Amino acid sequence: MENLNYLGKKIKEGGKMKVSVGISSRHLHVTKEHLEILFGKDFELEVERPINQIGQFASKSFVTLKSEKGIIEHVRILGPTRPYTQIEISKTDAYKLKIDPPVRMSGDVKGSQPITLIGPKGTLELKEGCIIADRHIHMLPKQALMYGFTDDEEVMVKVPGEKACIMDCVKIRVADNSYFEMHIDNDDANANLIKNGDLLTIIKKDFTSK
Amino acid sequence: MENLNYLGKKIKEGGKMKVSVGISSRHLHVTKEHLEILFGKDFELEVERPINQIGQFASKSFVTLKSEKGIIEHVRILGPTRPYTQIEISKTDAYKLKIDPPVRMSGDVKGSQPITLIGPKGTLELKEGCIIADRHIHMLPKQALMYGFTDDEEVMVKVPGEKACIMDCVKIRVADNSYFEMHIDNDDANANLIKNGDLLTIIKKDFTSK
Repeated sequence: MENLNYLGKKIKEGGKMKVSVGISSRHLHVTKEHLEILFGKDFELEVERPINQIGQFASKSFVTLKSEKGIIEHVRILGPTRPYTQIEISKTDAYKLKIDPPVRMSGDVKGSQPITLIGPKGTLELKEGCIIADRHIHMLPKQALMYGFTDDEEVMVKVPGEKACIMDCVKIRVADNSYFEMHIDNDDANANLIKNGDLLTIIKKDFTSK
Repeated sequence: MENLNYLGKKIKEGGKMKVSVGISSRHLHVTKEHLEILFGKDFELEVERPINQIGQFASKSFVTLKSEKGIIEHVRILGPTRPYTQIEISKTDAYKLKIDPPVRMSGDVKGSQPITLIGPKGTLELKEGCIIADRHIHMLPKQALMYGFTDDEEVMVKVPGEKACIMDCVKIRVADNSYFEMHIDNDDANANLIKNGDLLTIIKKDFTSK
């Protein structure tokens, strides 16, 4: 396998393992059923633009998030529809809404924060679904094999610059149809002055030489 | 010297050096001259509440920050007046204002971001003064001596939790009238799930055993 990621950037450089960053603004994923409640029967998401993860896209549809004490308008739905509805916000957003969603990996919504979604055709009072998405790195099975990572493994990631840091507890997610990329939210990006496409260094915590 | 900080929390615990956190929301410091332009002749700042650094206080006065492309209202002035005017915002605020202030230590405003301040009695178009305040730890000279730190030294700070990290390039600031406390902005707090008063561990980078 070539030593480049999908953007043509070097994954390994000077013996270091690099990953490019994708910053996730607040967004949501919805089930087909929930989409129809919010937007009307037989409504379908239209592609505004594809995102880096294969087959997924930023749609042209937006909803309003509402808690008991706050509101955030114009939150984009990512498509296609999923088997679960999940709202991903930052801690900064959570303070605005005066709610306390748990930090979770995508798909793990059981018992997460209740929230209300308001669409042009209907409102949905969800008993769970709102999370702060944990930092993670997407990777193909062949990449995991080649570079010695396993699904769910935790790594550290080194961020250079004026507000340099080493992020800990960053999860590796191995799956088909994934692009090698690290996902962080706006809080992580802004705190550490990270921009979309920045190359960060992965530090393997359980490194064993062969 | 006793092994407690001013809040009565242990500084050293199990051999580790701990520092409590104070989260700085966006705020500004002003000169007496600028205060009078914004609020009128002979205006004086009133104390809303004291802050942890000795002699300083959250005042009852607010201004609006204005850039060419954005506005943030209700930004608090900290008192007393200073020899320089300095506006401290987060990167998240900077995106809102569509400006790019430098990361600086307090007081180092030369050549920093221009910004406009709007008060009830006047407007001030500043050619410089807006910064993103760098993470730092305040310390008394006797504490620096006792624990082996020097002014301007860079340390690392370990943050525990679900979004654990190690912050690098955190500056030690040694001065009279300071309280032993680490200052971070809302972005750092929110990204790493840090709350006011949390105790973090200092890692000395240039450690030499005696």
